[in-house]
Amino acid sequence: MVDVTDKPEVFREACAEGVIKLKPETIDLIFKGLVEKGDVLTAAKVAAVQAVKKTSEIIPLCHNILITGVETIVERVSIDEVKVVVKVRTSAKTGVEMEALTGVAAALLTIWDMVKKYEKSLDGSYPDTEIKSIRVKYKVKI
Amino acid sequence: MVDVTDKPEVFREACAEGVIKLKPETIDLIFKGLVEKGDVLTAAKVAAVQAVKKTSEIIPLCHNILITGVETIVERVSIDEVKVVVKVRTSAKTGVEMEALTGVAAALLTIWDMVKKYEKSLDGSYPDTEIKSIRVKYKVKI
Amino acid sequence: MVDVTDKPEVFREACAEGVIKLKPETIDLIFKGLVEKGDVLTAAKVAAVQAVKKTSEIIPLCHNILITGVETIVERVSIDEVKVVVKVRTSAKTGVEMEALTGVAAALLTIWDMVKKYEKSLDGSYPDTEIKSIRVKYKVKI
Amino acid sequence: MVDVTDKPEVFREACAEGVIKLKPETIDLIFKGLVEKGDVLTAAKVAAVQAVKKTSEIIPLCHNILITGVETIVERVSIDEVKVVVKVRTSAKTGVEMEALTGVAAALLTIWDMVKKYEKSLDGSYPDTEIKSIRVKYKVKI
Amino acid sequence: MVDVTDKPEVFREACAEGVIKLKPETIDLIFKGLVEKGDVLTAAKVAAVQAVKKTSEIIPLCHNILITGVETIVERVSIDEVKVVVKVRTSAKTGVEMEALTGVAAALLTIWDMVKKYEKSLDGSYPDTEIKSIRVKYKVKI
Amino acid sequence: MVDVTDKPEVFREACAEGVIKLKPETIDLIFKGLVEKGDVLTAAKVAAVQAVKKTSEIIPLCHNILITGVETIVERVSIDEVKVVVKVRTSAKTGVEMEALTGVAAALLTIWDMVKKYEKSLDGSYPDTEIKSIRVKYKVKI
Repeated sequence: MVDVTDKPEVFREACAEGVIKLKPETIDLIFKGLVEKGDVLTAAKVAAVQAVKKTSEIIPLCHNILITGVETIVERVSIDEVKVVVKVRTSAKTGVEMEALTGVAAALLTIWDMVKKYEKSLDGSYPDTEIKSIRVKYKVKI
Repeated sequence: MVDVTDKPEVFREACAEGVIKLKPETIDLIFKGLVEKGDVLTAAKVAAVQAVKKTSEIIPLCHNILITGVETIVERVSIDEVKVVVKVRTSAKTGVEMEALTGVAAALLTIWDMVKKYEKSLDGSYPDTEIKSIRVKYKVKI
Repeated sequence: MVDVTDKPEVFREACAEGVIKLKPETIDLIFKGLVEKGDVLTAAKVAAVQAVKKTSEIIPLCHNILITGVETIVERVSIDEVKVVVKVRTSAKTGVEMEALTGVAAALLTIWDMVKKYEKSLDGSYPDTEIKSIRVKYKVKI
Repeated sequence: MVDVTDKPEVFREACAEGVIKLKPETIDLIFKGLVEKGDVLTAAKVAAVQAVKKTSEIIPLCHNILITGVETIVERVSIDEVKVVVKVRTSAKTGVEMEALTGVAAALLTIWDMVKKYEKSLDGSYPDTEIKSIRVKYKVKI
Repeated sequence: MVDVTDKPEVFREACAEGVIKLKPETIDLIFKGLVEKGDVLTAAKVAAVQAVKKTSEIIPLCHNILITGVETIVERVSIDEVKVVVKVRTSAKTGVEMEALTGVAAALLTIWDMVKKYEKSLDGSYPDTEIKSIRVKYKVKI
Repeated sequence: MVDVTDKPEVFREACAEGVIKLKPETIDLIFKGLVEKGDVLTAAKVAAVQAVKKTSEIIPLCHNILITGVETIVERVSIDEVKVVVKVRTSAKTGVEMEALTGVAAALLTIWDMVKKYEKSLDGSYPDTEIKSIRVKYKVKI
């Protein structure tokens, strides 16, 4: 684990985003709140916050950090794509981009899990489902 | 949580894969074992196994499952891409594709974390780094 | 930890319930979906499922168990009371009443956390808020 | 998750309490140290401390916080009631009442779990057992 | 992770033990129940059970297993030594010696933590304290 | 849990070490990188870092602490002994010797787990394997 003992505690913000490709009908169900397993948007947001807090358990060499704010947006960006944006804030000795990325990944996986039933083909595979892109949008350090 | 009480415990295998785009020089360092934070390949494999076992904590409505086998492959697939393949096996009442997907996501995030230093630009952003695609390769149920 | 090695794996169901007393206006906000922190009902249900799965970490001498089904109901039962009912199913060597009770407790605490802003008095205390009763409704073993 | 980035780190104390109703004979066994599963008072105190530290995992939108002190009292308050009081201290950007409440809930659930054998009726139900009231006693912020 | 998919689920028992060397006066305090932080014996036993259940999180490539019984003995074996014995039982596809060893380690570390105050020298070091031996006593598989 | 609310946050470092006795041939395999389960040295280091961060879950009354640096050395110290040294750094209100000790224990247990196959005798016991000594090397507080 990188030694950050001597780094100052400063305000940090990182924003990451990711996209999941789903069937158009599945996305309709999500945003109409008709998915049988429950409210996908809230579940994804809750999963993001919890994964952000759990990042140092998921990524072995990440520092444990106190998170002071998490903001998650889940929005339809095309006929067959949902985008998740996670913004993480803290005052810490090290950046929070891994936390934001982990939050995005957890939210996207949670969306997938909530709609498995609608995405699965007869043989149990997922021909239309794909987490397409996860990246850091920006980082701030003041 | 979907009720799987009455489903039989059968052999299940799921295989998921994902790709991370990195600078070519970073991938060279990874496969030469020269990354300062340590052996990226082993760290990614360990992260995958641990995330597979922790899936029901990361994805809120996933069932907790006993995993009987995890196999992780990390390989360079192009000048600037590393692919992670995670195969999960169990005998359970429900499939393990979410476990395989979560293992892939954790391994890819861990690779990113291990090479942050080489991927970060001067302003702290990651212009070249992207988790490009995470999907289910196949599922078996016998 | 009580030794259950020689007990047979049988179908188990346990149902627990609990009540939280809140200001009538707060409950209105919850069921109208107007709470600023997000959808209280989904958050409570997610918290219940996750706590059910985490019971053996929260209660030191509980056995770890594979849960095959969790059903959570959150309903207004009077002008100032919300009731949570959690039903847990499994096939296991030991009962799941502690899992159901832990799920209820987590859901009630999550409701409290989501509406702190509306329940808090000027001095930061909670004169109207109380988790009033948590008990086992019934247990089945077949 | 509520953004507390800009709030100052100040001394915080919160005290919560809760009551569990048990058979009088069960409470006798607890306080005589004759419960077969072990020392109920210590188990309840340990469970409280661990749940306090784990609050941000149990309640989805809680901030993770460093806890600097936990004090737990378990006392008989009537012929058939045991009260748990948990006091939590920290220096943090947000209050610790959820942590104190979670500690109380975990201690009460642990007491229940330790004495299941004595409380259970022949049909496996718990006619006399009930967690009766969990509330915040006071909060301090300096 | 070693693939145990095809191994049969059989009864497994493993017993591990370990010794901690402490000042004679400290051990007197432990067994008289006079340690200020609380009842060391119960805390050590609780820590053992919880670590047994958490083994697959602590040891990266361990399988997650359902534990059906844990028995922990803490006894003074000489003027300056306390021995911890942990016996773990389950019906599983793989042995539980790592679970028993992890339980022993957690119990010994917890004993150390509970008596730090009495073992610490003026400069904060621990000249008399040592975990001396952790080993597997026996394994059974039927 | 000891109340450290009023203690100042100062720089803390603690270094612990421990030894595992293995067959000479097993240690050869470890340092030649020929162990079938994977790279033992990296797995042990990852396990140490993760256990350091998880100490307050493993040892019930430990405070949760933000860790700013972990350094792990795994070296052969004799024909049949491997030593693990873990150095932990932080700026905190309480010392980190329990964190360093827990990291050492987890690394030693992980080494054992990785080489079970080579250490196990025909009857499944471990005649040559022993965690021999775990102790605090030094502590610094500035």
